[in-house]
Amino acid sequence: MNGSAPAKVRVLAIDPGTVVAGFGVLEASGEDASLLECGCIRPPSRAEASVKLLRIFREVTRLLRTHRPDILALEDVFYHKNVRSTLKLGEVRGICSLAAARAGIRVISYSPRAVKKAVVGNGAADKTQVQRMVAVLLGLTSLPEPLDVSDALALGLACLQDIRFRALVEKS
Amino acid sequence: MNGSAPAKVRVLAIDPGTVVAGFGVLEASGEDASLLECGCIRPPSRAEASVKLLRIFREVTRLLRTHRPDILALEDVFYHKNVRSTLKLGEVRGICSLAAARAGIRVISYSPRAVKKAVVGNGAADKTQVQRMVAVLLGLTSLPEPLDVSDALALGLACLQDIRFRALVEKS
Repeated sequence: MNGSAPAKVRVLAIDPGTVVAGFGVLEASGEDASLLECGCIRPPSRAEASVKLLRIFREVTRLLRTHRPDILALEDVFYHKNVRSTLKLGEVRGICSLAAARAGIRVISYSPRAVKKAVVGNGAADKTQVQRMVAVLLGLTSLPEPLDVSDALALGLACLQDIRFRALVEKS
Repeated sequence: MNGSAPAKVRVLAIDPGTVVAGFGVLEASGEDASLLECGCIRPPSRAEASVKLLRIFREVTRLLRTHRPDILALEDVFYHKNVRSTLKLGEVRGICSLAAARAGIRVISYSPRAVKKAVVGNGAADKTQVQRMVAVLLGLTSLPEPLDVSDALALGLACLQDIRFRALVEKS
């Protein structure tokens, strides 16, 4: 991010759903990207909204402390079905960004379309195509599941590609 | 909240804007409500979004520690102009709820219409009517300003009224 291609870059990518939030921690070293950890955060479904947010916040904070990523990548949203669900999504995004700011790292957002374009080469690719490409690019022996996880990994890969590109542009 | 009318109830009310967040801390003792602190949180306008959220979070956390309210009241949203602004509003709401969950207190949301109905008696009242009624109900010698603050105080008054009503219903 500072003009020369960093030797290693680590990203925590989160697909911030309100029921399930998929996450992935990836590290890029030159052209290669490797998977450090991935999974889902599932706050207790019957808890109050604020308690669910606290659960997600604690898990994101744990991931930041364990892996010390350089960047938090979040999925950006331009369209959503209704005000209520958009607001809830914003709540989850907000606490993820807050956790990153507390850890002193930057947050970069990517639209679902930009992620698909970066990973599959087609901004209109479906989620299973994304899932297969993620497995290929990370050299995984099985498909990452559920789709919340493969979406988060695709987001992380798109972020690493973006950083590599920015570094190349700044170098030239 | 536990079946009998509590002797004193303290509420932190926040009108969670993204540029300015108005807040008020009110205490009810029987029928009377008094103002303990009010003001605006204005995160630095040029800061990154995550840094703005951190600033709001720290200020809300300070208010919770200083005043130890029993409840956090937030304005609910059912309509907003676009996805982007709804998402931003959700981000601020999310970190306020998170701060409350960390402090172990409940969050209750009220629609702007319910707040106006409770304070002015008319769900379609305008903001200056609300402002005047807030001054009367809290026995203030001048109008609370700006409108972000009077909106937050109205929200706090609506919450105290709601709690008193619930306690009466539970008692009867």
